[in-house]
Amino acid sequence: MRRRKKKGADLKLLSYEEYVVVNAEDYKGRWRDYFGNDNPIYIEIGTGRGQFITTWAKNNPHINFIAMEMKEEVLLKAVEKSHEANSKNIAFLWKDANKLEEYFNENELSRIFINFCDPWPKKRWAKRRLTHHSFLNMYKTLLKESGEVHFKTDNEKLFEFSLNEFAGADWKLKNISLDLHNSEFEENITTEYEDKFVAQGLKIYRLEGMAK
Amino acid sequence: MRRRKKKGADLKLLSYEEYVVVNAEDYKGRWRDYFGNDNPIYIEIGTGRGQFITTWAKNNPHINFIAMEMKEEVLLKAVEKSHEANSKNIAFLWKDANKLEEYFNENELSRIFINFCDPWPKKRWAKRRLTHHSFLNMYKTLLKESGEVHFKTDNEKLFEFSLNEFAGADWKLKNISLDLHNSEFEENITTEYEDKFVAQGLKIYRLEGMAK
Repeated sequence: MRRRKKKGADLKLLSYEEYVVVNAEDYKGRWRDYFGNDNPIYIEIGTGRGQFITTWAKNNPHINFIAMEMKEEVLLKAVEKSHEANSKNIAFLWKDANKLEEYFNENELSRIFINFCDPWPKKRWAKRRLTHHSFLNMYKTLLKESGEVHFKTDNEKLFEFSLNEFAGADWKLKNISLDLHNSEFEENITTEYEDKFVAQGLKIYRLEGMAK
Repeated sequence: MRRRKKKGADLKLLSYEEYVVVNAEDYKGRWRDYFGNDNPIYIEIGTGRGQFITTWAKNNPHINFIAMEMKEEVLLKAVEKSHEANSKNIAFLWKDANKLEEYFNENELSRIFINFCDPWPKKRWAKRRLTHHSFLNMYKTLLKESGEVHFKTDNEKLFEFSLNEFAGADWKLKNISLDLHNSEFEENITTEYEDKFVAQGLKIYRLEGMAK
């Protein structure tokens, strides 16, 4: 289903100047200047309506969060959540994951969250999946030593694909869950999608991976 | 459910002298002498009624197979299958997996199959699961360089546990399936249990791991 564009969402989004970073390229290698501190940087690719990242930011004031989302109308919701919470440790990028290397330096990130990304189910689309090894190699470059990817999905086939991609690229995996909401993992912060899926009785798959 | 012992199964089993190796300890480090050749050795822990291993043995005459099973009445079925097929490349051990090191030397094995082992579901039983890291460390010792464990189960929780144990012990994983019979993996040989589970619509989980 093609999303309906909400008229004016883009302009409204850009009006949140203190949250939405338009010139993200300018901060490549110097996000510490943007945040005015040397705290670790966690990014989320595809932040959606922002429940996950704004909760993380509230619970972790000594971590800087960068939330990326391409769809302006959902990003606007996330920015509004952050504005209401008066968060000082989140920046939003209205940007695509393909170009991460334009915004971040090698070893600049401490963690990358990927939650409920598009499964791109057809085989010929495999390269577009955010856990394809070409993406994993990019993440590896951008992550610090011991930096991690935390990945969640409701899609069994995408999770199976991802397990094989991470293992094939020699990532060290841990906290692998095949049914997160019936597991012993207690530190889970949910996304809006996740709440909906869990209410429908769907399983959530999750893993953590370390590249170096 | 406690299994019913079939009277006389043990005696009948031992009568198959050319298949059942009673003094397995004597062949530790010299299974090549038992088989009379230098072919790679694949073992199966918990061979059950033997469909899996006898099919493998028939399809792969240049590999030696050793099938281990503790329950004499099911092992007898496996031995009878092998006898009917006149297999020359299978030996059967009426033995427990705990003592693998009494029967095999370091680097003596090329592959270990573990199919539908007891999930030992209670947490306090974790050490008994055949994919607990204490077992994985033992397998690592017994396997040659590039030797592999191939593991299948219908138990989601056991598979989740196993993924974490293999990953935690730095095994290189591949061909991970979360639903083997709806996957692209084509070389699967089924066990009797597996046929029953699949007919019931249950999912089969599978992985391959290399320790060194």
